[in-house]
Amino acid sequence: MAKVGIMGAGSWGTALSLLLHKNGHEVTVWSINAEEVEMLSREREHKSKLPGVKIPEDMEFTTDLEKTVTDKDFVVLAVPSTFTRSTARNMCPFIKEGQLLVNVAKGIEESTLMTLSEQIEEEIPQANVAVLSGPSHAEEVGRMIPTSVVVGAKTKETAEYLQKMFMNEVFRVYTSPDILGIELGGSLKNVIALAAGMADGLGYGDNTKAALITRGIHEIARLGVKMGGALESFMGLTGIGDLIVTCASVHSRNRKAGYLMGQGKTMQEAMDEVKMVVEGVYSTKAAVALGKKYGVDLPIIEQVNAILFEGKNAKEAVYDLMMRKGKAEHNAKPWS
Amino acid sequence: MAKVGIMGAGSWGTALSLLLHKNGHEVTVWSINAEEVEMLSREREHKSKLPGVKIPEDMEFTTDLEKTVTDKDFVVLAVPSTFTRSTARNMCPFIKEGQLLVNVAKGIEESTLMTLSEQIEEEIPQANVAVLSGPSHAEEVGRMIPTSVVVGAKTKETAEYLQKMFMNEVFRVYTSPDILGIELGGSLKNVIALAAGMADGLGYGDNTKAALITRGIHEIARLGVKMGGALESFMGLTGIGDLIVTCASVHSRNRKAGYLMGQGKTMQEAMDEVKMVVEGVYSTKAAVALGKKYGVDLPIIEQVNAILFEGKNAKEAVYDLMMRKGKAEHNAKPWS
Repeated sequence: MAKVGIMGAGSWGTALSLLLHKNGHEVTVWSINAEEVEMLSREREHKSKLPGVKIPEDMEFTTDLEKTVTDKDFVVLAVPSTFTRSTARNMCPFIKEGQLLVNVAKGIEESTLMTLSEQIEEEIPQANVAVLSGPSHAEEVGRMIPTSVVVGAKTKETAEYLQKMFMNEVFRVYTSPDILGIELGGSLKNVIALAAGMADGLGYGDNTKAALITRGIHEIARLGVKMGGALESFMGLTGIGDLIVTCASVHSRNRKAGYLMGQGKTMQEAMDEVKMVVEGVYSTKAAVALGKKYGVDLPIIEQVNAILFEGKNAKEAVYDLMMRKGKAEHNAKPWS
Repeated sequence: MAKVGIMGAGSWGTALSLLLHKNGHEVTVWSINAEEVEMLSREREHKSKLPGVKIPEDMEFTTDLEKTVTDKDFVVLAVPSTFTRSTARNMCPFIKEGQLLVNVAKGIEESTLMTLSEQIEEEIPQANVAVLSGPSHAEEVGRMIPTSVVVGAKTKETAEYLQKMFMNEVFRVYTSPDILGIELGGSLKNVIALAAGMADGLGYGDNTKAALITRGIHEIARLGVKMGGALESFMGLTGIGDLIVTCASVHSRNRKAGYLMGQGKTMQEAMDEVKMVVEGVYSTKAAVALGKKYGVDLPIIEQVNAILFEGKNAKEAVYDLMMRKGKAEHNAKPWS
């Protein structure tokens, strides 16, 4: 049995808390929101974010950050990506040398182009930062639907320890040393989810969407490999796997915002209608900036960017993509 | 303008005929079925297989095989995979040295484990055989929905010639020298489509399906790379792309048969209910045989095989997959 602190009581933090509790670990869950802590302690159900899932009596909720992260075998960071840096900064004074932290959010900081684990390491240099990612709707993990994810860590020892902590008959965990590839795939896939939503909004079919998904992940992989990630990660659970689950979901905000823009709405109108943060909009900016920095051609992502920020018509963007000069699919094999 | 013969007036043959006609080529379409030829010539619509799509007056339909394949710039083979060998055998006497043939069907012959292009080459040794494959529901291509595919050929010259013939603003064509990888991906993906259908039938969610698709294509890639295909093809339009389109489709017979087995039906009951050939059932046998021949471990495919042919319960198969020993996702990067 391990002692685990969970930072964040949203849908993903709560679902992972339930999973770790089911595996026999002692779980303390932190939220910045006192009302949420009080509600969860009393109701034993997160009615808005994880409805219908019962929370055991011996799972503790608190607003006490120090208590949540002190004397823990590992701490899970499950706050939204825009709060990762500030939360890490607040945690730092209580984090001992070598403390294992597992970040489960996804995103790239627009101003620095840093991944979340890089931000955490900057704020808490003494921590040992790992990540957990993959195709995993929290709602399904909360209902114990079979799910497979990847844990990325610096050492095999750390990765296999976390694999043992999280894994059970409904949650399969693979290990990987490719923290960067895992994080880039998880963040940048949202740009392609926007594009797939746009294709749906234009009334195009499964052919169009499958092509966008496949060529889109290749674009992300080209960029990610140049940055130091492994091709296999982008082709794995945290890349194409996560993208598939996002594009299949009718609940995805990225897909929905894309859908509205495919129907002719502007970015602002789409954002207003979705009424929530659309991560892919920020990821698009970051991806375009990274493409420039690393000299990688990103045709789909650049078209999404033009639709979002230059008022380009989605139909015209698809036409421009289709009519690019004919190319080889890859250069992995020579011609005879 | 090229002269093109199309062997087969099913949905895919008809859709490709329309596409080539739209590109300005002279198209002659053959069917073994005189009634179908008469109906298409008269109605100018394939009401059962491509409803609502008008066929131009100057597109010729015939039962005359010799006429269809003689003096053509290229001939497209669009007959069902079980008839590919016999059709090729009948074509052979009329095929001149170096004649370009493009096969667009998918499958592996159970008795010989040969791909379709290998069978065609055996029957017509004087032909220059190429393939065209990718995520392309005929119904959508017939309606000119944006679609991307790959043409595989032995030489760059042939591939780029076919790219030019097929490509237009709704049909993007990539070239590849990896004929084997293209054919293996297109055939073996149906096994994973069965598995994805089973997960749906069991009531599992998007997480489960995304994991099966991602890990499934990796299994196929492991086998295919051992056989001589390129990893990039399995991760491309003819591998993961085609698998995504199959798993997304409510019309896929493979997905539907899997769904019924996930709900507890036997293979025979599922086949009876789907009332059509379920390609994935044959592909599973072929995949298991190829796995043995090449010494490749295929955990998902072997579970599908056990469900199909050994009466194993689908739920138990999922449990066995989830509870395999924890593994690394890939070995592309060293641990620090």
